[in-house]
Amino acid sequence: MNKPFKEKVQQVDIPALGLRNYWYPAIARWRLGSRPKAVTLLGEKIVLFRDDGKVYALADRCSHRGAPLSMGKCLYRGSGTLSCPYHGWTFDGGTGKLVAKLMEGGESPLPARAAVKSYPIHEHAGFIWLFVGDMNPVPFPTDLPECIADDSKWFSISNWRTYKCNWRLVMDNLAHDQHAPFLHRESPELLFQPIFKHATRNSTELLEDGTGIGHHATHGVHVTHYEGLGPFPPPQEAWYRKLKPSGRGKDMDSTSAANAKFGLKFRHMNMLPSIALIGRPSGNFFTCRLVTPIDEETTILYNFNLFRRRGSIIALLNSLKWVFWSSWAHDWLFSDQDKVVVERIRPGPELLSKTDVGLTAWRWFMARNARRAEPEALSSEVVPQIVEH
Amino acid sequence: MNKPFKEKVQQVDIPALGLRNYWYPAIARWRLGSRPKAVTLLGEKIVLFRDDGKVYALADRCSHRGAPLSMGKCLYRGSGTLSCPYHGWTFDGGTGKLVAKLMEGGESPLPARAAVKSYPIHEHAGFIWLFVGDMNPVPFPTDLPECIADDSKWFSISNWRTYKCNWRLVMDNLAHDQHAPFLHRESPELLFQPIFKHATRNSTELLEDGTGIGHHATHGVHVTHYEGLGPFPPPQEAWYRKLKPSGRGKDMDSTSAANAKFGLKFRHMNMLPSIALIGRPSGNFFTCRLVTPIDEETTILYNFNLFRRRGSIIALLNSLKWVFWSSWAHDWLFSDQDKVVVERIRPGPELLSKTDVGLTAWRWFMARNARRAEPEALSSEVVPQIVEH
Amino acid sequence: MNKPFKEKVQQVDIPALGLRNYWYPAIARWRLGSRPKAVTLLGEKIVLFRDDGKVYALADRCSHRGAPLSMGKCLYRGSGTLSCPYHGWTFDGGTGKLVAKLMEGGESPLPARAAVKSYPIHEHAGFIWLFVGDMNPVPFPTDLPECIADDSKWFSISNWRTYKCNWRLVMDNLAHDQHAPFLHRESPELLFQPIFKHATRNSTELLEDGTGIGHHATHGVHVTHYEGLGPFPPPQEAWYRKLKPSGRGKDMDSTSAANAKFGLKFRHMNMLPSIALIGRPSGNFFTCRLVTPIDEETTILYNFNLFRRRGSIIALLNSLKWVFWSSWAHDWLFSDQDKVVVERIRPGPELLSKTDVGLTAWRWFMARNARRAEPEALSSEVVPQIVEH
Repeated sequence: MNKPFKEKVQQVDIPALGLRNYWYPAIARWRLGSRPKAVTLLGEKIVLFRDDGKVYALADRCSHRGAPLSMGKCLYRGSGTLSCPYHGWTFDGGTGKLVAKLMEGGESPLPARAAVKSYPIHEHAGFIWLFVGDMNPVPFPTDLPECIADDSKWFSISNWRTYKCNWRLVMDNLAHDQHAPFLHRESPELLFQPIFKHATRNSTELLEDGTGIGHHATHGVHVTHYEGLGPFPPPQEAWYRKLKPSGRGKDMDSTSAANAKFGLKFRHMNMLPSIALIGRPSGNFFTCRLVTPIDEETTILYNFNLFRRRGSIIALLNSLKWVFWSSWAHDWLFSDQDKVVVERIRPGPELLSKTDVGLTAWRWFMARNARRAEPEALSSEVVPQIVEH
Repeated sequence: MNKPFKEKVQQVDIPALGLRNYWYPAIARWRLGSRPKAVTLLGEKIVLFRDDGKVYALADRCSHRGAPLSMGKCLYRGSGTLSCPYHGWTFDGGTGKLVAKLMEGGESPLPARAAVKSYPIHEHAGFIWLFVGDMNPVPFPTDLPECIADDSKWFSISNWRTYKCNWRLVMDNLAHDQHAPFLHRESPELLFQPIFKHATRNSTELLEDGTGIGHHATHGVHVTHYEGLGPFPPPQEAWYRKLKPSGRGKDMDSTSAANAKFGLKFRHMNMLPSIALIGRPSGNFFTCRLVTPIDEETTILYNFNLFRRRGSIIALLNSLKWVFWSSWAHDWLFSDQDKVVVERIRPGPELLSKTDVGLTAWRWFMARNARRAEPEALSSEVVPQIVEH
Repeated sequence: MNKPFKEKVQQVDIPALGLRNYWYPAIARWRLGSRPKAVTLLGEKIVLFRDDGKVYALADRCSHRGAPLSMGKCLYRGSGTLSCPYHGWTFDGGTGKLVAKLMEGGESPLPARAAVKSYPIHEHAGFIWLFVGDMNPVPFPTDLPECIADDSKWFSISNWRTYKCNWRLVMDNLAHDQHAPFLHRESPELLFQPIFKHATRNSTELLEDGTGIGHHATHGVHVTHYEGLGPFPPPQEAWYRKLKPSGRGKDMDSTSAANAKFGLKFRHMNMLPSIALIGRPSGNFFTCRLVTPIDEETTILYNFNLFRRRGSIIALLNSLKWVFWSSWAHDWLFSDQDKVVVERIRPGPELLSKTDVGLTAWRWFMARNARRAEPEALSSEVVPQIVEH
């Protein structure tokens, strides 16, 4: 079914400022207080403000003389408007329309072309989400995986990190490229267990609903041998890996609870626009990572730890484990091993290999299926598998 | 007399490095000591030095190998020369001519093309002024308003602030664009009086001598009403504005002392190259602000508080009021409200409006009448009035 | 023999990133410990690492996905290999060849095109030297003067300084351009002796072996006179110059020990790629300065103080003098007088003069004789002497 192909997608073929026409998290709800707040998403400068409990988002540049609206104020509470700090041009938060020029009196004309761009907004899972693009918004939470979209069944503990590099490098890192057994082998979280299985045979499949791809990795081993060098992991690292011989739980296969009970076929999936969804065979925990382009040299990685709601006792235990263990062992130490490398990658020619089957498939999927202002039918082809030497 | 017109001048049509062939303040006199000093004006690197009480200004790059002359010394006091720090090429401060190559002996040829550019200099009102341009200098103080030019009748207290933005944004801010009633309404200086009159009908006239334009604003009110929003100033800001119902003195009209006694017709004028002159109806106080381009992203705003000489008692009272009140209430707090906005403006398309009549007229005047190396007759046309929606 | 000519070489005609295909010092040996180290030379990012006592240098970008190899480790000590931190691609330090993909097992193909550039290395005189270029390396120490190349006869005390400017400006400073009598006249090292002889007649000759040029300066004087100015040094600097009337030793001529005993004809020589060699008439001390391009705006100046081995007592005295005197009086204070000027030079048109005969000849020599990937015969012409006004 999955044949090698040669239609390689280079990093530079993916838009440097991100895939448009998707919902992205913009800021944690608690960080937006009573004052307007400037954010940047996909290179666009945006002002968020809250009035009468509702949140609004407008382009952060007054159409009059270019002052940042984020330095302005909500002078008329309850009206959902924001006034520019410079001459008081006042815009409706919902539509972006100019509703008053406060220096000119009530009779002054309010031309339609004075409107600023307004952004569709949704508050969900502790964040304010914006639809950034050039078309009518798709309903929220289209595109989000069920485990984060449906908070009646799941709850989340989330955090975020700013990467000083282009989003494509962060996305590549999350496309199942087999870096984990190497880069993270000395992470405290994994130190006293065998190295992740590696030297796998990888393949990729379309998710059944066409929203992304899922990754398979089979035939992996805990130790490999290299002529002239010796075994990997190298001898000096081997002894302390034997304290927990079972490693990090079982593989995910058709007998796993995730698969058998919940129909979740993959341990690692990628979904548009820039989501990595990585789960446990139990089907009760997923980490959902949203790679959010800020500008060409800045990315915010939102990390949602998602727990299936299974009663308050289990929720309490899940939360305690996160607070006392995963928050620092995984979300901080483990993830920062990626961060220090990814931020220092020097873009240029690549030589993609067996480990990059997932990466290559995911780039191909993004390039082919990303939503466009002129929507196309989603591809129903199988995902091509690049195996290349 | 003043008809609407469509000949709009965009910000980008005004030179980014300033209008050439004018006198600009370069530095306060007290800041130039016995060592040469590097300054930048209109993008040009200049070295100032003082010898035997006289000040000189040369291009700050040695014609030999490019070292900055501002790192050199006046080795021969009284000769009005400056020597390059690298190989001792020595230049005459008045003409820029090379007068010695100190490493080569007195017989060494001194080619005329080795001269560096020299700048005409004038010391006045506590500052060193330079003529920056490409033609013979006009006599100082051509272009300066009488209140700063004639220090037998006026004295000044001055200061300056560095803006991290292009000079055009600072100039726009001083072209009577009606931002004051909005942006400064919460300035401590104005807090306990009604908001400046706004919703005015604005118009602009040529100054009688053709050196600039004067602004009229009539029919202004202290309160305006906006459908769906309410009154401006908004209710929560209204109560503390009633403590001084008269506001900031009277309007300036034909009965004002400024007009009747001194023939000063305008409260707010703009003059070439980049001057805003704002006065009181009494005719005894003007603030003259000189917007001085440094480089494309830096501007120094020189602020002269000008008091008509009316005896030493009044001069003392004027000075005391400035020290204990205006220096911080106006020159610092009030002006910095402009600074924080102006520095953050994002240049781009504008949508000029009724409030921008003065700005538009002033851009038009600059574009049309700015001095050129090949001088043209000053325009005698009336100033076009842009009213646009 | 030496006729004026007009074939001027401009600064911009010399490569901004340095002359390729030469050996350059990369780092002091003691600074490379057990962890890989990133350096930059001639704009190339390079990783150095040490394994089993041997040093290796590779291009610091993994051919797989672009991660910096300098963040990796030597996992297999004794194999001379370095592994990328991201997916464990492992490269041979000597050849740059890919020898393992640690995530893919021992059977994975290792394509030849996956090799990264490797740099020839030599350890000498306390430094690690790299051959940076596009051709097979010339044997070390080709190009180095005998006094630094032959450490059986000479020993060295060395240091280095980072200049924040292009290497050409530092090189110009070391091409015998007569700046010393002027720029360094107030150096503590020279304060109580007459100013260096200046107003010299300069000329330049090819070194006999064709490896560089040597500078002559004759007819110099300690005082010059300038009409309208007075004498140089200026009167206020003259009195304290008379405490050591003999100045800095004798001139170097055919009777000097350097010449008579050792055949060293020049006090100041320049050699490819970017060497200045300045010695004493005794022939027992040379300072060799290597101008090493890092990137377009950074240069490291390596400074070797070279002493002829004449027994351990003299070596001890030489060393003590350097520690207690030359290290700060010359290598620090004297050289920093150059540094502050050179870093502030504004590149642009030059007006080369009598003082620049050496500079002009040296640029001409570099442009004509620098090694190229396609080697040409070295020029045997005499060095043209530019005298220009």
